[in-house]
Amino acid sequence: AACRATRCLPGEIAPHVLLPGDPGRARLIAEQYFDNGQLVMANREFHSYTGTYKGLPVSVISTGLGSPGAAMVMQDLPRLGVRAAIRVGTCGTPDPDLRPGDVIVATGAVRDEGASKKHMPDIFPAVPDFDLTAALLGAARTLTDRAAYGLVLTSDGFRYPGLAEESALYAGAGVRGVDMECSAIMVLGQVCKVPSACILSVDGHTGNVAAGKLAPDGEARDRGIRTAITAALDAFVAIGQSHHG
Amino acid sequence: AACRATRCLPGEIAPHVLLPGDPGRARLIAEQYFDNGQLVMANREFHSYTGTYKGLPVSVISTGLGSPGAAMVMQDLPRLGVRAAIRVGTCGTPDPDLRPGDVIVATGAVRDEGASKKHMPDIFPAVPDFDLTAALLGAARTLTDRAAYGLVLTSDGFRYPGLAEESALYAGAGVRGVDMECSAIMVLGQVCKVPSACILSVDGHTGNVAAGKLAPDGEARDRGIRTAITAALDAFVAIGQSHHG
Amino acid sequence: AACRATRCLPGEIAPHVLLPGDPGRARLIAEQYFDNGQLVMANREFHSYTGTYKGLPVSVISTGLGSPGAAMVMQDLPRLGVRAAIRVGTCGTPDPDLRPGDVIVATGAVRDEGASKKHMPDIFPAVPDFDLTAALLGAARTLTDRAAYGLVLTSDGFRYPGLAEESALYAGAGVRGVDMECSAIMVLGQVCKVPSACILSVDGHTGNVAAGKLAPDGEARDRGIRTAITAALDAFVAIGQSHHG
Amino acid sequence: AACRATRCLPGEIAPHVLLPGDPGRARLIAEQYFDNGQLVMANREFHSYTGTYKGLPVSVISTGLGSPGAAMVMQDLPRLGVRAAIRVGTCGTPDPDLRPGDVIVATGAVRDEGASKKHMPDIFPAVPDFDLTAALLGAARTLTDRAAYGLVLTSDGFRYPGLAEESALYAGAGVRGVDMECSAIMVLGQVCKVPSACILSVDGHTGNVAAGKLAPDGEARDRGIRTAITAALDAFVAIGQSHHG
Amino acid sequence: AACRATRCLPGEIAPHVLLPGDPGRARLIAEQYFDNGQLVMANREFHSYTGTYKGLPVSVISTGLGSPGAAMVMQDLPRLGVRAAIRVGTCGTPDPDLRPGDVIVATGAVRDEGASKKHMPDIFPAVPDFDLTAALLGAARTLTDRAAYGLVLTSDGFRYPGLAEESALYAGAGVRGVDMECSAIMVLGQVCKVPSACILSVDGHTGNVAAGKLAPDGEARDRGIRTAITAALDAFVAIGQSHHG
Amino acid sequence: AACRATRCLPGEIAPHVLLPGDPGRARLIAEQYFDNGQLVMANREFHSYTGTYKGLPVSVISTGLGSPGAAMVMQDLPRLGVRAAIRVGTCGTPDPDLRPGDVIVATGAVRDEGASKKHMPDIFPAVPDFDLTAALLGAARTLTDRAAYGLVLTSDGFRYPGLAEESALYAGAGVRGVDMECSAIMVLGQVCKVPSACILSVDGHTGNVAAGKLAPDGEARDRGIRTAITAALDAFVAIGQSHHG
Repeated sequence: AACRATRCLPGEIAPHVLLPGDPGRARLIAEQYFDNGQLVMANREFHSYTGTYKGLPVSVISTGLGSPGAAMVMQDLPRLGVRAAIRVGTCGTPDPDLRPGDVIVATGAVRDEGASKKHMPDIFPAVPDFDLTAALLGAARTLTDRAAYGLVLTSDGFRYPGLAEESALYAGAGVRGVDMECSAIMVLGQVCKVPSACILSVDGHTGNVAAGKLAPDGEARDRGIRTAITAALDAFVAIGQSHHG
Repeated sequence: AACRATRCLPGEIAPHVLLPGDPGRARLIAEQYFDNGQLVMANREFHSYTGTYKGLPVSVISTGLGSPGAAMVMQDLPRLGVRAAIRVGTCGTPDPDLRPGDVIVATGAVRDEGASKKHMPDIFPAVPDFDLTAALLGAARTLTDRAAYGLVLTSDGFRYPGLAEESALYAGAGVRGVDMECSAIMVLGQVCKVPSACILSVDGHTGNVAAGKLAPDGEARDRGIRTAITAALDAFVAIGQSHHG
Repeated sequence: AACRATRCLPGEIAPHVLLPGDPGRARLIAEQYFDNGQLVMANREFHSYTGTYKGLPVSVISTGLGSPGAAMVMQDLPRLGVRAAIRVGTCGTPDPDLRPGDVIVATGAVRDEGASKKHMPDIFPAVPDFDLTAALLGAARTLTDRAAYGLVLTSDGFRYPGLAEESALYAGAGVRGVDMECSAIMVLGQVCKVPSACILSVDGHTGNVAAGKLAPDGEARDRGIRTAITAALDAFVAIGQSHHG
Repeated sequence: AACRATRCLPGEIAPHVLLPGDPGRARLIAEQYFDNGQLVMANREFHSYTGTYKGLPVSVISTGLGSPGAAMVMQDLPRLGVRAAIRVGTCGTPDPDLRPGDVIVATGAVRDEGASKKHMPDIFPAVPDFDLTAALLGAARTLTDRAAYGLVLTSDGFRYPGLAEESALYAGAGVRGVDMECSAIMVLGQVCKVPSACILSVDGHTGNVAAGKLAPDGEARDRGIRTAITAALDAFVAIGQSHHG
Repeated sequence: AACRATRCLPGEIAPHVLLPGDPGRARLIAEQYFDNGQLVMANREFHSYTGTYKGLPVSVISTGLGSPGAAMVMQDLPRLGVRAAIRVGTCGTPDPDLRPGDVIVATGAVRDEGASKKHMPDIFPAVPDFDLTAALLGAARTLTDRAAYGLVLTSDGFRYPGLAEESALYAGAGVRGVDMECSAIMVLGQVCKVPSACILSVDGHTGNVAAGKLAPDGEARDRGIRTAITAALDAFVAIGQSHHG
Repeated sequence: AACRATRCLPGEIAPHVLLPGDPGRARLIAEQYFDNGQLVMANREFHSYTGTYKGLPVSVISTGLGSPGAAMVMQDLPRLGVRAAIRVGTCGTPDPDLRPGDVIVATGAVRDEGASKKHMPDIFPAVPDFDLTAALLGAARTLTDRAAYGLVLTSDGFRYPGLAEESALYAGAGVRGVDMECSAIMVLGQVCKVPSACILSVDGHTGNVAAGKLAPDGEARDRGIRTAITAALDAFVAIGQSHHG
């Protein structure tokens, strides 16, 4: 039978998968980055495409916004034969050293969300696979000198009373990005034994969100997204060579 | 500026709004239940349509799957001038007295999700607006003798280690449905002062999910969804008459 | 054998029961509202009387102050054959729109107490039975145009360091009354399968408690208590007709 | 103005106070143990009497069943000029070495209740005043060779799903009695700076409660209660001599 | 086989054991207070010596700094035949009535550490054995008129963001000393059934720690430590006579 | 003034520091691996030595057993000018694929300890510095083909009731080692902005600990410790060249 979230069948998805949040971005990736990208299935916000990149079979599946959907997609991956998954997304940043269009490779995530708690207690660390992350950071550094690494705050809330205080607390301990999916992908990656990693394009400073100034720098953000997508695909090529070697 | 999740502007959304999870269902509602239903905006999984029902201006906005997206949509509603919101969705049930196609009007929800916690502590009850719920239950009972009321378990997880044990615990205290959005909508409704309610169509028994038998009874489920949508729209008409009286 | 808290025997208590906190109020109800009200048993603060109201057999049992006693009384009710229970009590209010003597029908409660936690986790909602609450709200609205509905904060503390801050937090999300028993009655009602509801007379504003001005408006409060008692008994008559129909 | 729970005024209560739970026991103590015992006030389940014992002015105030009422009475005591308070109550025991009629002087309590949490975090220990406890244990040992000391489990629940498991856990770490008020009295004693202690008469084994055999050994229990009351009053005389010396 | 932390064997350790934190202090005690003190074993920071004091066989084992090591040493004691253990250590104080060199006999401890939580839930009280504590307080009062009793805050942190706020909270409820081992020793003493107690020498005020003034009054502190050690050994002699009687 | 735990002064410690738990191992490292290793200070279990390795100035400081001491040492490091710290220690393993003498480079840690909680909430991930960890893993892989990476469970308990169940839970999600210091070093490294990493030698399987078979394979363990120390020092050389470049 088809998997629960993606409604895909074994064989329809490649061993290397990109995981954007937005279904629109999944389509863009399939159209602009894949050779022969084909829509496999569109169920709710979970849209799946398969193609090739530099000869490597690859797929992209949108997780929708938020950790519950991201976790459900992760739970489908083992049955689909996936061996490596990279989230490509966007984030705000509390870090004044970062600029829109910079990319952050996540080396861990604050688990301020509910989905991963159904699988592991709070004290379990949300960390990506080390070798995949090393490949991803290497690929990003090859593409740009604006590739950072650090922690991400993954939250189930977008605006909420404690936002400013919590952001400051975590920024003081190395959090450089704020998103809504990374920690679920990392913890489910550990639980489901699917090596996973995350790369995010900075689209603005979180202080501006708090101040109600939401409009990001579109041109810079798009450049960052292109860097993130390319770095993820290049990392798959590097890793895939060893997987298939 | 446009709202964050929906990207809609004040004036584009009617005071009475249906909130399905699935963007596909939002389109179906606009096409099959609204007069002059028009797409207002499609951002990610948040698709908005506005039209009329029995002469009353109404809108439908999909929340996507999961509480984080549902909460973000709820946060947009005050600025859009919304005065009543009803989630129409599907659920599993642990209750052997219920059958696929039955509808449940939710009178409260177990808050097993992270989004509402960013706004209220765990001990705050997820409850719908009483008068809106009374109108919804009345409308449902007019349409069918298979309209129940009771509690819903809203969870950020779909399959997880404690699922069977937790379902049994809550079923013993009146939980009749299991979904992934109700409690966020109820709590944010209280916080944002948007009266909200929830009606769910039963699509199967949770024991079957645990046993890996996921295929619901499609015909019964569709009948239940039609009942839920009609009951919600009829409740708006009943409530709307007093709002506009 | 006799039940643990009430020390009553099956057959001694009517299927419809009022639950005031104060043993003195239980006697007043039996003397002034019941026909042929008789003391059944007085154990500690749990005093039970049985009589009739408009021909319907009814009882009143005082729960004492606080959730532990209220929970123990609720646990006795199934064995005593009780089919509906309504708490009639008093509360403070943080809501400037309410006045002493107004009545509040509780549609949910913040579970800031320990008794219900021994039976259900914090995330389980304290909600009353819907149909009983609808009957109670209907009866109250028939008696007065000062009948509100909303959430109640039930706490194990009367004065404590976080009182002002917590009251403000919950008042912002729809809490209109503060008492010490409602949530235990609601949760135990769900657990023990005894439909229950709560109506409270406002005896003052919580800000005055914090400021040390404790003296409530006695005349208004008594009027509110009379309204609450009559509404609860009238709701039993309305519900009881269907129970006995 | 009168105090909140007791409705007593400064000057009406002696510096040394017994705190039974049951209002009936407060009256018994005033009638049978005090010289010139007089009812001061009866508000709800809070009944207060003042008299003398061996020439020492003493009072007794019933707290009702449960920690919320016990905490409220404790909060009244500083304003009433109380300098030492001893709870005299009953308990079940999980300890096979204890028999009905034995007395336990509590040297600490498991805080399985909500009232004290409003004042101190869970990690704060519920412990009695050391010198008062030493005097109480000394007095009890003078009266009987069946005086034990140890920890007490104070719970907001009487029967609940986890009862057997939790009792076994705590019994393995030195819990010898189970009641519903001790920890609130100890923590509030620390917070309100009223030295407090607790002595309990064993009225049965908790395993019998779980098994539904609730009837305690009345004769043994009454003997234990008389021992507990006398020990508490004798401790006041011993301590009071130094207070007044 | 040898015990895990101490690496000692049954028979090598006396039934009465002093537990300083610092291995250097263990040696000092063996050299200056014991007759015929001999090193038994030095494993990591766990150094053990056995000798006699006023003819009573006694041992001293250093626990190292912090609750994890203290808990591990406590877990070794039953197998080593230990019947009473007294921690002798130093503490800061938030109490302006205390001076460097005063001693505090701990009557309970705030469990702000992780080691004891692996054995008992937070609500379990960290309390010492009553009779051993009475003997210890009696011995201390014989040696000095600067012997206090009260609660101790045991924390896993030395400097941390919430330090000042938490110290003030607990000081208001009777905390007179701050250390890093007491609560683990008390809880493990209950769990392992080894009667235990704690006496601490005050070496400065916690406000000075917060202000960065760390240098304690060395002469006063040494006097307090000598008092604590002597009181503990004298208490063993008093208790030991009954143990061996 | 001297630092609190180490009692060292700025200038006495090199920018690259090894952090074993055992003071005896600190001495062994200084004697056998450093050129011109000199004791700087020995305070309690915190013993510090400074020397050179392949020409690079290096220090070693023992943290003692457990997270409280490890955290205190970490808090001293910024003032001492430390720019990179590597814990070299031992661990048990629940992983049947690992053997005594294998080394594990920790890529994250379960925070089952109290010390780091005083600085960051539970949901903050314990992760090492990425670049330092990459250098450490690279150095280890150069030395042996038995170098693994994965998560570590850091606990404040050694033997406790939930040990077997918790180990199995975490092992299923990628935990390959169990120790008592890693997570405190990682979290404090983030908070204090001292890049840190951890390498552990496997000294046995945790199932043997549960079964009471504690004796590890000494020869294999020593080989693993030598590998861990050499890998850490070689990583410093690799990193130090860029630091000083």
